[in-house]
Amino acid sequence: MSRGAAVVLLSGGMDSATTLALAVRDGFEAHALSVAYGQRHGVEIERARELAKALGAASHRVVGVDLAVPGGSSLTDTTLSVPRSRSDDDIAAGIPSTYVPARNTVLLSLALSWAEALGAQDLYIGVNAVDYSGYPDCRPAFLEAFESLARVGTRAGVEGRGVRVHAPLLKLSKAEIVRQAVELGVDLSRTVSCYDPSPEGGACGQCDACRLRARGFKEAGLKDPAERGGS
Amino acid sequence: MSRGAAVVLLSGGMDSATTLALAVRDGFEAHALSVAYGQRHGVEIERARELAKALGAASHRVVGVDLAVPGGSSLTDTTLSVPRSRSDDDIAAGIPSTYVPARNTVLLSLALSWAEALGAQDLYIGVNAVDYSGYPDCRPAFLEAFESLARVGTRAGVEGRGVRVHAPLLKLSKAEIVRQAVELGVDLSRTVSCYDPSPEGGACGQCDACRLRARGFKEAGLKDPAERGGS
Repeated sequence: MSRGAAVVLLSGGMDSATTLALAVRDGFEAHALSVAYGQRHGVEIERARELAKALGAASHRVVGVDLAVPGGSSLTDTTLSVPRSRSDDDIAAGIPSTYVPARNTVLLSLALSWAEALGAQDLYIGVNAVDYSGYPDCRPAFLEAFESLARVGTRAGVEGRGVRVHAPLLKLSKAEIVRQAVELGVDLSRTVSCYDPSPEGGACGQCDACRLRARGFKEAGLKDPAERGGS
Repeated sequence: MSRGAAVVLLSGGMDSATTLALAVRDGFEAHALSVAYGQRHGVEIERARELAKALGAASHRVVGVDLAVPGGSSLTDTTLSVPRSRSDDDIAAGIPSTYVPARNTVLLSLALSWAEALGAQDLYIGVNAVDYSGYPDCRPAFLEAFESLARVGTRAGVEGRGVRVHAPLLKLSKAEIVRQAVELGVDLSRTVSCYDPSPEGGACGQCDACRLRARGFKEAGLKDPAERGGS
């Protein structure tokens, strides 16, 4: 039996694809939302369409929001370069330039908007607080604060119903995410993790996201099916 | 002396124009942000440009986000009609169809994104909890929850600095807002409050926003300079 509708943020990366697979497995009617926010990796959106279909999403929508207008990130500002590191152990500490200011607040607010329109009370987001890039909006305290906000700022809240933010990958290592994805049958060859891929989705292999992904596969003892950068 | 940068949400309506004037009066370097979210009243954005300039904003940006994609509101869905009432006393109770799901969460998250990029810690929003349309995201508890979220979800938060959400109109009646606007020299003839104006900005005179505005001017004992709907 369906547990009702849920909105799942789906970027086209490995983490959000795995999150969608988990929402479906959990029995939700999963509505996937991709946000085209002016990121360099626009190929993600196309992959998200494929993944939503393959993973059994009830529907998929793409909402555009131009986060290049507020700016402040090398992911949306093409005059800045995405940092590349020399080895997997060389991921910079602190908040890197790829951080998009308030990105997850914007993404969750859009998911919340759709959830309200659908009458859904469950949101899924593929954030991870273990092997992550040091972004402030990937932390458990952030997700709890968003639930509190949703409780007071929505029709559901006024009517005494809450909103739950599910972040099933929050405490998993990248290796555990890889294993989870494989177990759920997610086609990882179609996921794009790179911050600065080629127009066809080829990974650079050197940005933090590529390094974290490579480390995850290595620790899981598996080979990345997208490794050659060809997909 | 400047109190630093602040981001002010500016819709082009009377309330947000007054809020911008207050941020400037309070000594902030005010950066005005208009969000084109697919509302019927696109003329607002043009008026916002004029108002930002006239009221001394340090800069003005427009960010597009298509809230018609999540849907659920008569303000963004042209297949639904904006409710019109027969008299000023006939404003419906409860949450009306003009409520845009999670709108203020989306607006504040975009303001927060720009604030982070600017290094600003102050946001201004012209919400009002007295003479308002019954929207859940216009209540004090919502603003407090957003401050808490911003504290944990941003670079400023990680570095121990907070974010303040100023809502200087929160506890004013519409009549008090009208008086405040006049006192600050806001050109109210250029503000658009109507939910469903003509392409030139002419007000319908019958939606909740028009009714609330008319009541405000009446109680303030003033004549609305935009009353004839010609501007």
